[in-house]
Amino acid sequence: MPDPRIVIYGPGSTGLAITKMLCDRGVRPVAAIARTGSKTVGKDLGELAGAGRIGVIVSDRADETLAKARADIAVVTISSYLDDTLYGIFEKVVKAKADVVTLAEEMLYPWVTAATLSRKLHELASAHGVTVTGTGHQDGYWVNLVGVLMATGHKVSQVSGALSWNVDDFGKTLAEQQLVGRTKEEFEAWKKSTKRKPTFGAISLYALAATARLTPTGAISTDTQPDLATSRVYCKALGKYVEPGQLLGYTDTDTMKTKEGITLRISSCGKVYVPGESDFNKWVLSGKRADGTNVRLQMLNADLPTAVTTCATLVNRIPDVLEAPAGLVTIDKLPQLGHRPSLAARSSEA
Amino acid sequence: MPDPRIVIYGPGSTGLAITKMLCDRGVRPVAAIARTGSKTVGKDLGELAGAGRIGVIVSDRADETLAKARADIAVVTISSYLDDTLYGIFEKVVKAKADVVTLAEEMLYPWVTAATLSRKLHELASAHGVTVTGTGHQDGYWVNLVGVLMATGHKVSQVSGALSWNVDDFGKTLAEQQLVGRTKEEFEAWKKSTKRKPTFGAISLYALAATARLTPTGAISTDTQPDLATSRVYCKALGKYVEPGQLLGYTDTDTMKTKEGITLRISSCGKVYVPGESDFNKWVLSGKRADGTNVRLQMLNADLPTAVTTCATLVNRIPDVLEAPAGLVTIDKLPQLGHRPSLAARSSEA
Ligand SMILES: NC(=O)c1ccc[n+]([C@@H]2O[C@H](COP(=O)([O-])OP(=O)(O)OC[C@H]3O[C@@H](n4cnc5c(N)ncnc54)[C@H](OP(=O)(O)O)[C@@H]3O)[C@@H](O)[C@H]2O)c1
Ligand SMILES: NC(=O)c1ccc[n+]([C@@H]2O[C@H](COP(=O)([O-])OP(=O)(O)OC[C@H]3O[C@@H](n4cnc5c(N)ncnc54)[C@H](OP(=O)(O)O)[C@@H]3O)[C@@H](O)[C@H]2O)c1
Repeated sequence: MPDPRIVIYGPGSTGLAITKMLCDRGVRPVAAIARTGSKTVGKDLGELAGAGRIGVIVSDRADETLAKARADIAVVTISSYLDDTLYGIFEKVVKAKADVVTLAEEMLYPWVTAATLSRKLHELASAHGVTVTGTGHQDGYWVNLVGVLMATGHKVSQVSGALSWNVDDFGKTLAEQQLVGRTKEEFEAWKKSTKRKPTFGAISLYALAATARLTPTGAISTDTQPDLATSRVYCKALGKYVEPGQLLGYTDTDTMKTKEGITLRISSCGKVYVPGESDFNKWVLSGKRADGTNVRLQMLNADLPTAVTTCATLVNRIPDVLEAPAGLVTIDKLPQLGHRPSLAARSSEA
Repeated sequence: MPDPRIVIYGPGSTGLAITKMLCDRGVRPVAAIARTGSKTVGKDLGELAGAGRIGVIVSDRADETLAKARADIAVVTISSYLDDTLYGIFEKVVKAKADVVTLAEEMLYPWVTAATLSRKLHELASAHGVTVTGTGHQDGYWVNLVGVLMATGHKVSQVSGALSWNVDDFGKTLAEQQLVGRTKEEFEAWKKSTKRKPTFGAISLYALAATARLTPTGAISTDTQPDLATSRVYCKALGKYVEPGQLLGYTDTDTMKTKEGITLRISSCGKVYVPGESDFNKWVLSGKRADGTNVRLQMLNADLPTAVTTCATLVNRIPDVLEAPAGLVTIDKLPQLGHRPSLAARSSEA
């Protein structure tokens, strides 16, 4: 099979990192789309990505670019939730008969939290014979590693993850979202008043439950706790100091109960790091031995390079998406996530 | 789908632990087979397993028992390598039109190290419309967790595992195999003279390479180093002390090179533990960031309860084997290893 023809849709931070990885692997994207007014329009995608000129100019004319590109798949790295805007972008790609692989966090398992748009997207993709799939860091670390671990335990009753990411790896928007530099009182007021979208942790619990063939009962509960500075800490994303007592960020803990009696929980901390801290992913499964005594299964991924894992996971999912049946196909329905030396589909699509 | 009809073939240490797990999950085996002379013959399988009487009497008449059992699958926990004896046992099961799931270590990926018998077994199973698959602890910890991890890295060049198991969790045979209590001179003489079978580490590297779609180049190299006692240590399996300077066991390091330039390595230590030691499974992957700088992906499973993971993994693989196409089907061709609340196949077999 020849290399897939790939379009980069949303050449921002992750879209460009994925572009660089694709070029490193010898698979140059064939087109790139940005919105009108973006400073990337008219520039060479390879140059923007630090991969050198590749002769692909970023365009703001989506329909025309998609029509010309004859793409097999579009990498969509624009936003997090399956709202009307993101649906509209997927629709353009689907109508151009290309698959979609996206980092949009809700797309990991949108069936519950965006049920209506999910069904509509599934019908649209099915009708056009293409696949739409969400992946990213969670696919490996919050879902599939945990799913494998769960298969190695007996009478597992609780699955608990704790993980941390650094606000200063990203821009101002995320730092503000994590309430960096706010007071404890401001945090409490926000917590009372906020109508938050489902957390990324909650969405990944739905994907984990589906992967482990569990049936959620009731809604996921989310608890949020502030992480307070004990000394003065500089926040690069905001360009200012966080004072002792102010928020470095906060931790969301999402809990899901299942019909099978297994509780799934994920604690996700996003904050400004103090020296010595780094990204980690840690899971503990509580189960039983055959003799009835308690036993724990543990996994720790220390010093985790989340920026790498996010984009590399998407790249390795490309052949799975190309090979998948048509429709909105979430990761629980894909083959085991794995390393793919070739990005081409092994069989032609149905 | 109704619960599968399961035969326990070889009700020893792991066969009985699996029996207990199956009973805990409400799926009682329907028959059990041992060899003539085994002290298990004529006893109730459930009582042997500590699960209470289940009315299944262990028989030494394999053909008759298999004919009567109308089994969907046999759990074979007898020996490690695909030799003529194990082939003969699989043949009986296959001819009785039941699938096989086994802990035999070589069966994880026997295509290279037992090529002729593998092909013969594949033809036999295909002709009878049944599946034969090897699984166990390695399926999760040495292959599939590592396979997922590899999907999250960019330009991975080396994948290195280090793991340890305790000789005193098993019997005298394994303690002798690991040369516990021997001198360094005896170890060196053994190393020169021995014609060892492929290590379990080497076999699992073949399964990992297949899972990661890599092509091995040349043979796997195996290096073996002694683990020497620095103080007096009691070996339960042998019922005697290991003196300072004598072997507590040894560590095999297997290395595979691949056409894709990725080196796979596994260091497997089997020894008598000194206080404070426990089973672990640790992997480090060396790769690159998109900007070309080095990066490592790490995973540690500490305090690993290997006896649980071995048997629970087999149990959770049962529906995958029931659903798989006919033939010798190794784990790289199965769906992602995962937790299975129901052991029934989801679709009827082809
Ligand atoms: N699942 C995961 O593991 C994971 C990891 C990281 C990020 N993400 C998610 O992925 C998304 C992208 O992240 P990022 O760090 O790459 O963000 P970013 O740097 O802000 O990039 C987003 C890009 O999308 C472009 N864009 C916005 N609206 C568009 C439209 N209508 N049409 C075309 N292009 C449009 C932006 O263009 P402008 O130049 O006009 O702004 C920008 O280039 C975020 O939602 C983030 O949460 C997921
Ligand atoms: N893949 C993994 O993760 C993993 C983990 C643990 C063990 N294993 C492997 O699994 C195998 C079994 O281990 P184990 O600890 O259960 O050993 P075990 O306690 O010695 O059990 C073996 C059983 O097989 C029976 N047996 C031997 N030959 C037979 C035959 N021809 N017909 C019927 N039954 C026969 C034995 O009966 P008797 O009563 O007559 O001896 C015994 O009950 C070993 O090869 C071990 O290396 C694999």
